[in-house]
Amino acid sequence: MTELFATDKLKALYPKVKQFIEEELYPSELYFLKDPWDEVNHILKAKREKAKELGLWAPYLSEEEGGAGLTLTEFGQLSELLGRTPLGHYVLNCQAPDIGNIELMHQFASAELKEKYLAPLMKGEIRSCFSMTEPDFAGSNPVNMGTTAVLDGDEFIINGHKWFTTAADGAAFAIVMAVTNPDAEPHKRASMIVVPTDTPGFELTRNIPIMGDMGEGYLSHAEIHYVNCRVPKSNLIGEMGSGFMLAQQRLGPGRIHHCMRWIGICERAFDMMCSRAASRELRDGRMLGHQQTVQNWIAESRAEINASRYMVLHAAQKIDNEGSKGSRLEISTIKFYVADVLMKVLDRAIQVHGALGITDDTLLSFWYRHERGARIYDGPDEVHKASLAKAILKGYGM
Amino acid sequence: MTELFATDKLKALYPKVKQFIEEELYPSELYFLKDPWDEVNHILKAKREKAKELGLWAPYLSEEEGGAGLTLTEFGQLSELLGRTPLGHYVLNCQAPDIGNIELMHQFASAELKEKYLAPLMKGEIRSCFSMTEPDFAGSNPVNMGTTAVLDGDEFIINGHKWFTTAADGAAFAIVMAVTNPDAEPHKRASMIVVPTDTPGFELTRNIPIMGDMGEGYLSHAEIHYVNCRVPKSNLIGEMGSGFMLAQQRLGPGRIHHCMRWIGICERAFDMMCSRAASRELRDGRMLGHQQTVQNWIAESRAEINASRYMVLHAAQKIDNEGSKGSRLEISTIKFYVADVLMKVLDRAIQVHGALGITDDTLLSFWYRHERGARIYDGPDEVHKASLAKAILKGYGM
Amino acid sequence: MTELFATDKLKALYPKVKQFIEEELYPSELYFLKDPWDEVNHILKAKREKAKELGLWAPYLSEEEGGAGLTLTEFGQLSELLGRTPLGHYVLNCQAPDIGNIELMHQFASAELKEKYLAPLMKGEIRSCFSMTEPDFAGSNPVNMGTTAVLDGDEFIINGHKWFTTAADGAAFAIVMAVTNPDAEPHKRASMIVVPTDTPGFELTRNIPIMGDMGEGYLSHAEIHYVNCRVPKSNLIGEMGSGFMLAQQRLGPGRIHHCMRWIGICERAFDMMCSRAASRELRDGRMLGHQQTVQNWIAESRAEINASRYMVLHAAQKIDNEGSKGSRLEISTIKFYVADVLMKVLDRAIQVHGALGITDDTLLSFWYRHERGARIYDGPDEVHKASLAKAILKGYGM
Amino acid sequence: MTELFATDKLKALYPKVKQFIEEELYPSELYFLKDPWDEVNHILKAKREKAKELGLWAPYLSEEEGGAGLTLTEFGQLSELLGRTPLGHYVLNCQAPDIGNIELMHQFASAELKEKYLAPLMKGEIRSCFSMTEPDFAGSNPVNMGTTAVLDGDEFIINGHKWFTTAADGAAFAIVMAVTNPDAEPHKRASMIVVPTDTPGFELTRNIPIMGDMGEGYLSHAEIHYVNCRVPKSNLIGEMGSGFMLAQQRLGPGRIHHCMRWIGICERAFDMMCSRAASRELRDGRMLGHQQTVQNWIAESRAEINASRYMVLHAAQKIDNEGSKGSRLEISTIKFYVADVLMKVLDRAIQVHGALGITDDTLLSFWYRHERGARIYDGPDEVHKASLAKAILKGYGM
Repeated sequence: MTELFATDKLKALYPKVKQFIEEELYPSELYFLKDPWDEVNHILKAKREKAKELGLWAPYLSEEEGGAGLTLTEFGQLSELLGRTPLGHYVLNCQAPDIGNIELMHQFASAELKEKYLAPLMKGEIRSCFSMTEPDFAGSNPVNMGTTAVLDGDEFIINGHKWFTTAADGAAFAIVMAVTNPDAEPHKRASMIVVPTDTPGFELTRNIPIMGDMGEGYLSHAEIHYVNCRVPKSNLIGEMGSGFMLAQQRLGPGRIHHCMRWIGICERAFDMMCSRAASRELRDGRMLGHQQTVQNWIAESRAEINASRYMVLHAAQKIDNEGSKGSRLEISTIKFYVADVLMKVLDRAIQVHGALGITDDTLLSFWYRHERGARIYDGPDEVHKASLAKAILKGYGM
Repeated sequence: MTELFATDKLKALYPKVKQFIEEELYPSELYFLKDPWDEVNHILKAKREKAKELGLWAPYLSEEEGGAGLTLTEFGQLSELLGRTPLGHYVLNCQAPDIGNIELMHQFASAELKEKYLAPLMKGEIRSCFSMTEPDFAGSNPVNMGTTAVLDGDEFIINGHKWFTTAADGAAFAIVMAVTNPDAEPHKRASMIVVPTDTPGFELTRNIPIMGDMGEGYLSHAEIHYVNCRVPKSNLIGEMGSGFMLAQQRLGPGRIHHCMRWIGICERAFDMMCSRAASRELRDGRMLGHQQTVQNWIAESRAEINASRYMVLHAAQKIDNEGSKGSRLEISTIKFYVADVLMKVLDRAIQVHGALGITDDTLLSFWYRHERGARIYDGPDEVHKASLAKAILKGYGM
Repeated sequence: MTELFATDKLKALYPKVKQFIEEELYPSELYFLKDPWDEVNHILKAKREKAKELGLWAPYLSEEEGGAGLTLTEFGQLSELLGRTPLGHYVLNCQAPDIGNIELMHQFASAELKEKYLAPLMKGEIRSCFSMTEPDFAGSNPVNMGTTAVLDGDEFIINGHKWFTTAADGAAFAIVMAVTNPDAEPHKRASMIVVPTDTPGFELTRNIPIMGDMGEGYLSHAEIHYVNCRVPKSNLIGEMGSGFMLAQQRLGPGRIHHCMRWIGICERAFDMMCSRAASRELRDGRMLGHQQTVQNWIAESRAEINASRYMVLHAAQKIDNEGSKGSRLEISTIKFYVADVLMKVLDRAIQVHGALGITDDTLLSFWYRHERGARIYDGPDEVHKASLAKAILKGYGM
Repeated sequence: MTELFATDKLKALYPKVKQFIEEELYPSELYFLKDPWDEVNHILKAKREKAKELGLWAPYLSEEEGGAGLTLTEFGQLSELLGRTPLGHYVLNCQAPDIGNIELMHQFASAELKEKYLAPLMKGEIRSCFSMTEPDFAGSNPVNMGTTAVLDGDEFIINGHKWFTTAADGAAFAIVMAVTNPDAEPHKRASMIVVPTDTPGFELTRNIPIMGDMGEGYLSHAEIHYVNCRVPKSNLIGEMGSGFMLAQQRLGPGRIHHCMRWIGICERAFDMMCSRAASRELRDGRMLGHQQTVQNWIAESRAEINASRYMVLHAAQKIDNEGSKGSRLEISTIKFYVADVLMKVLDRAIQVHGALGITDDTLLSFWYRHERGARIYDGPDEVHKASLAKAILKGYGM
């Protein structure tokens, strides 16, 4: 917790969440990653029940909905804790992409969609996915999109080719981004539509093997073909053509969640790095941590992680106060800054572990592999840097 | 100003200080740097009077002493403003090493020393210097020291060789660090003693030419030989052997001052970089700022400057709340992090300015040259990284 | 090929090897990595036969032994070609650790060992492994070692715990480094001993899962317990206590092999990066390669790869002319320099590929994961930097 | 000397040049930089005479012209030696911009111009300058140019505003780049014209103060206004409109000269860094060079300097064999790579020197300040990276 951002609510929850992940998740986290999803899921269900009993469930939800009614700034600090273990978010039903879908539907879905899809999602009875990225179009320019949803009476007919639809395997429904208004101006062409995964024409071609893992269940990223996939018009979220506007809404808090999760990973990796440095003997009482290079890495990591946390929490507070739109630049800034710190800290932690660091005997390899995407997804860092700079230069008349 | 750290006092002063430096100092700052100190000093005296009239004088002093009674956190935010121009601190009597000497004497000097030296210093009637660094001993290990002060009746006899005694040229007195208790344990050997610069045996050998500047008046760093230099025993600050303890006290706020000044330099250089990028045409309407590399530099600088400011202000607040001692790690962290950001931002700003960037037609060359020392003085960055890491590893049993 | 290092022999072989890997290996290299080793091995055997027919087999061997009698400098340039595909070295019987073992036994093994083990190894009838690294001792200080080989009559009894014994799974024998002379000075304590893998007490505990791959057959790194493992005294290579001296001998050419292989990987990744940059459209004819950031990465990679190749070939030539011993500093230098370039080039290539770059649909993920070890194995980069610097500073009297 | 690039001629000259700079220049080089040019010039003249006597004069000239007839590759290796001291090139008449002007006029000037200007230049009787850069146009796009030369009968009338005309102060003539064919295609608009500096209308406005130095004599960079400056048409070098073509010709060898000079600076700074590291005591026998961070800097510098030298010499040899045109990419590559290494090595050397490193008591400050331009002049690094990348991507169909 950071002094300036600690509230009473947070002070009450923080130690409970910390204890929960350390006692319930740390001891078996490596197995969670290795074993088949069906077995893992079985165990995680029990952990989820326990979290509910302890009042830790989905703390970003309002109290009526079963959560703790936390602000983004408060939740962010728990999110850092959850990020310290790969399934922390999942067990508390705070995992992407579900949390983003929940936030989105909460604000923009119809009562009908809320009852049918949002309610069981909030309870953790089903999972969902978000189907936006396409292999044939550069993610750095999201307006480029090939998937279409054509109205045919009361139904949309959806056709298209998506990939990197995270956690589609086992999800009950997808929120699909598709072009519905091809003649509108670029940013008003697409809409978001709920597509149950058992709809004929929803064809999950494969879980994409990523960085050495085949992917399965929640821990997967799917390639999906939508082939004449028909859903009721009422599955539209928001208005026709509002897809990108909604995506922007979804991204603001989403980036806070990601960044705080990354900081959680950093803290865990930092802790592992220090433990190793303090306990690995080179010779006669000289430890790895006596090496000045290792000391440099520890000091630089500490500085960069602290800087990351302050920046993200200040951005979160700005979103809490002024909304996502007014915080666009802060959100771009933390995205590329923290993603870079994440990769640096993981890399140093691995180097300090030596050969052990590249094995799957620690969490470092999992993160090193699967968080490499942090610099790519949600728009590559380069896009965020350019858009931040352009906004700044606008103020100088360019 | 940063939302979370803005107070009513600060909100009142901030725009006044901003207006003052922009209107009174920006227009002629390059001349201040080039012209002989005697001429410059003449003009600056008038600016100082104006600052007093406007109630901007030495805002870190209490109101009774003619200041505004600001906390370190409040003052830091003004210090950033002052740092945007090379003589900002001087004009408001906030310049190193005087501010450090003032803070030190305030807490630890006798009533007599206060009346004789501190009072005119606070009023800006005299200048002072701080004589610690020695050419023959590595600055990274301050306990190594060759200068001695031997008691002879009621007088100290001081002998030694110092350099990098900033602003000695024209100063009324030096605070000299000298070994008084050679047989004590290393950290208790030295004391701080006030030595008027007109004392026989205070020999200012030369102003050291630094990065192309001969140095003169306030803008100088002297090499000094102390040759049988006699001062009354009552010129001792604090107790015998308390030199390093006092130096530590002096350094805490001192590093906040430095870091916020550096951030001020960063903001000015950033502003210059953006102005140049937005106005320099490459060809047919394509500006320098349209180059993605320049955009990267702008975005990365923005992120790093923001990170620096948050870290320094959080550290300042911790010192305000808990004192320097409890904030040692934060103080080490900001020192090396911000010094590094400073050099990166200056380097990028120069590169964006092209040939103009290496001329003395802008401030960038001055800062590029004279702030290179930021990674060296007050202990080289490497020492701060090592001491931060060691403190962290202690928590892991090393 | 590099003009200055091209010989007639090389000019004749180079295009043949190039054609061979491009036509025989490129088309199915991704399957080689994914399919079970037994299936892969089956196909690779056929490729190996073809290589023999084409006269490409093990070109570092003398012509009598079935090779082409290349110098290290000549072979290095072929090794770069082979490195462009993950199984290039294997198919031409140039793969580590076999090539290192061949070079070692060639020089130092007895006639009996040569006949029994070296001969079939050179023909590719069997595989071997090299068992040195131990989990309980820091690899950065190889003199630390727990495995012992005690003489009992005409037999060694070996006990110890090794890991990262590459390709032990399926190997016919291991060369084991074990302490035989515990009372000698540190560098003369260990010896190298041939241990057939079917010896009772040679217990391959597991193939260590590394960076997401379980590992199998040649593509594996084993953890091995030696439990009262008995082998004839005549299985000793060289003299008692000569283990570290032999290891040093083995490492010289070994680092050239590794570095040239890394450069091959760099060239392939560079080629993929450029292909992608030139073909991925962002919008309306603007390609990824038009982005200045991508251009920076391409230019910097080109420079660094060229620099790497020049340095390694100059080092190889020095070894050819003066032997490993006189080239120790050059060998340390290329190790850390090229390993660093390798990681940078791979990282940039991945970023240019966006989401595709983190999938296992290209080779980049395989190399990104499995070459991370390049900065660790054969002594972490930090150790090489320190030993280079110490040797240099010796020349300055330190 | 580098084994592979050493010739008999070079082996004979190299030790003589080395001895000359070490004995004749090293002892007083700091004074050369500080004292007024007229005094310095006086002494340097004597050194130049001595160099002539020893047969070291302008070794890139043919033997008939008083040189040694060295290839670019041979001369480059001497140039590295000369670069180790700031006035090395000057004393052997190898200094920019004269050497570039000599090479240019040699190939393209008329017999008349050669007799009048080239001959005394080669003998060192006069100095020259090269007037191309303009303050109002971005140097990254040299085709942009405001200076014009209009034919009026047998004379050119030149008008324009130049700056960074190196060494104009005291030069006998300038080679001026001016637009003569405004309606031609961009690369064929400008011409090179010889303008004696005593021509009416040649107005040297000021020596531009750069990085703290006012600049004077050879050590200066001038701002010049050309105001109706008339010179005979026969002062044209080459053909009308051939200016950029000639500039390209001039740049090829010019970049080899610069890069080898930079490597010379690197070697000297490296030597200073190692001397300091080996001799500065931190405490009780622990030297600065025992610090691992310092060791890292030494090792990385060694690797990068070696890489630089290999790359530059390979490029030089390519120019020797194939001419500048075919070596364009190699020339761009070494420019940005070596400039970057230069700045890194200087920065590390300064940090190792601590406070001493920022004084003008060593050469490091001079180079740190005046070589910062290396990343800017001759086209900023960013332009070279982009042009290299574009040329590479052309090969991929972009």
